[in-house]
Amino acid sequence: MAQLKVTPGRPYLKDNSDAPGDVSAIIGITGDTEGSLSITFSADSIKEVVSRMLGEEVMEINDDVKDAVGELANIISGDARRELEEKGLRLQGSIPTVVAGPRHEIKHIGKGPTIAIPFETDAGPVTVEVCFNR
Amino acid sequence: MAQLKVTPGRPYLKDNSDAPGDVSAIIGITGDTEGSLSITFSADSIKEVVSRMLGEEVMEINDDVKDAVGELANIISGDARRELEEKGLRLQGSIPTVVAGPRHEIKHIGKGPTIAIPFETDAGPVTVEVCFNR
Repeated sequence: MAQLKVTPGRPYLKDNSDAPGDVSAIIGITGDTEGSLSITFSADSIKEVVSRMLGEEVMEINDDVKDAVGELANIISGDARRELEEKGLRLQGSIPTVVAGPRHEIKHIGKGPTIAIPFETDAGPVTVEVCFNR
Repeated sequence: MAQLKVTPGRPYLKDNSDAPGDVSAIIGITGDTEGSLSITFSADSIKEVVSRMLGEEVMEINDDVKDAVGELANIISGDARRELEEKGLRLQGSIPTVVAGPRHEIKHIGKGPTIAIPFETDAGPVTVEVCFNR
């Protein structure tokens, strides 16, 4: 949608203070296990992504930007859940919740570790995080 | 747990820019409908709440504070889901995700309105928000 070049980086176990961002979307996961998934952008990277999606320059973190981040989280969550379903794990996803605030930090409160997957894009860095109870 | 006097205020339909806070926990809801629930504190109010819970003064938004906010969200989500289950609505809750960042704003991306329930406590204001797809 945004005609972005996206390069996945090496996943790592997240320490709580890693990967602050300016706009995030969070989706809760339930089903065969409980978890949560987040996607976090810097303000610059999400403004660039949404500018390309809409074909006009986005200057601030407005409702269009928040809705786009929620939609991107839905797409990622849906793809991941379909892949896990093929492996026998049935999961449901909640609606997204979008958080906007400069340099916020996210902590997933699950029994398992939080895995962070960094992506480099030509609009800037993006981080996807997932955590499950088991 | 925190021996707080809590006074619920009048629920209202949330406009997106309402109710910024410094520490929030978000829980995704799935089942007969999808939704999300959040609880948002100011930094001062959550430090006071957790200081009372732990019996020692908490000076910063550390891991103890984040875990406590997640646990409070679990309790509220569990109580609400039990009440809705008595009315025939079966819902599951995800693990909590905690967001810490000064003056962040939350937007729930569901098809229905977001209902905000403000609470006054002697530690400061707290806001609970819920949104469902239907």
